[in-house]
Amino acid sequence: MNRLYHFPLSPFSRKVRLTLAEKKIEVELVEERYWEQSQEFLRRNPAGKVPILRMDGRFLPDSLAICEYLEETVPDPALLPGKAEARHEVRRLVAWFDGKFNDEVTSKLLGERVFRKLMSTGYPDSTRVKEGAKAIKFHLDYMAWLLEQRRWLAGDVMTLADFAAASHLSCLDYISDVDWDRSEAVRDWYAKIKSRPAFRSLLADQVSGFPPSRQYADLDF
Amino acid sequence: MNRLYHFPLSPFSRKVRLTLAEKKIEVELVEERYWEQSQEFLRRNPAGKVPILRMDGRFLPDSLAICEYLEETVPDPALLPGKAEARHEVRRLVAWFDGKFNDEVTSKLLGERVFRKLMSTGYPDSTRVKEGAKAIKFHLDYMAWLLEQRRWLAGDVMTLADFAAASHLSCLDYISDVDWDRSEAVRDWYAKIKSRPAFRSLLADQVSGFPPSRQYADLDF
Ligand SMILES: N[C@@H](CCC(=O)N[C@@H](CS)C(=O)NCC(=O)O)C(=O)O
Ligand SMILES: N[C@@H](CCC(=O)N[C@@H](CS)C(=O)NCC(=O)O)C(=O)O
Repeated sequence: MNRLYHFPLSPFSRKVRLTLAEKKIEVELVEERYWEQSQEFLRRNPAGKVPILRMDGRFLPDSLAICEYLEETVPDPALLPGKAEARHEVRRLVAWFDGKFNDEVTSKLLGERVFRKLMSTGYPDSTRVKEGAKAIKFHLDYMAWLLEQRRWLAGDVMTLADFAAASHLSCLDYISDVDWDRSEAVRDWYAKIKSRPAFRSLLADQVSGFPPSRQYADLDF
Repeated sequence: MNRLYHFPLSPFSRKVRLTLAEKKIEVELVEERYWEQSQEFLRRNPAGKVPILRMDGRFLPDSLAICEYLEETVPDPALLPGKAEARHEVRRLVAWFDGKFNDEVTSKLLGERVFRKLMSTGYPDSTRVKEGAKAIKFHLDYMAWLLEQRRWLAGDVMTLADFAAASHLSCLDYISDVDWDRSEAVRDWYAKIKSRPAFRSLLADQVSGFPPSRQYADLDF
């Protein structure tokens, strides 16, 4: 049986979970408190990070490397388009969300408000929380600008770029940190992706000590 | 004419320069002081990061997305192997160097010792410099361990993983921060890659105010 070592509020893990579900690859989820850096965990991935996919007799780390692997081995349905320029645009946006958005928003809001407590590394740094709350506006506006020209973030079909974005936003929505009133285009996009069967497992997530926000699992938010 | 907006001591830019040179794609290099975030630069890449490749009438940001694009459009010579597992291993290692190594080593050594001064953001943080100097040992040992089993970092052929690693190490070697005596395997690997024609342009780099270390351009270091 395939296995995914993950953490519920890890956006990188979520991108892989969405990809697996969309491609209908069954997987057993194993929750990993990655910050404890257990010996066994480091043997599976010396980088000490989740997610790690156990598949085809191997331990495969790194969310983007995993998604590329799944795209190559289970091509249907495709999460990358066919043309090189369009594939570049998807990968650019995956890097945008997993790099820039993660640094400027997710690590500041989720990192301070949830992970500090989970990892027992002190109180939230309110400066960082404020920076994150400010930066998310720029990012939502950028998404809105893209979505005014395109049906999905990278073009006319749903791709890994949408999964990367939805992974971060869903983690932030869990703690009520997304202002869905800021852009109708973004809200409509999120409603579409949230209602996919692949999203269900994410909406059932619970992290003890942190109950999800009221609208988190609501398809009509 | 193709153009690459880059910065000489940006490891992400270097990975793309090596890829372009190895594939014999001619390109005009344009130095971008990316921290000044000029309007024109942000129009080319709203993420505000280098590198950006101007090619086929488009501005293409993000080093990995660029390298994947080049691999798809100019497949020869290949920098990713053919099999999905081997491709995963290359991408895992690219993520290792551009993610983990960059966070734990490059951003702490090069970031504090060079970029703080270039960007006029104060004095080097000596705690971070010490952390970087400690972490690079772990990383060199991990590379040595890989290279005891393999000719190149990801397997028996040279790949993008070698370029990612060499990009970071060459930037650190510019400021004398790599202890080449730590592992013969790593030194031999670096000597091999450093002597490739594709490396020449990197070895000619100069950043004003920061002369390169004595051994930086020496093929017999
Ligand atoms: N490039 C990695 C990043 C994964 C990542 O940063 N995961 C976080 C949890 S969301 C982690 O495990 N952090 C622990 C660490 O960096 O030491 C990927 O895409 O999988
Ligand atoms: N994921 C990007 C990262 C590039 C990156 O971080 N570049 C640095 C220079 S080495 C930069 O432009 N930083 C400016 C910023 O992040 O605002 C890539 O691979 O190209």
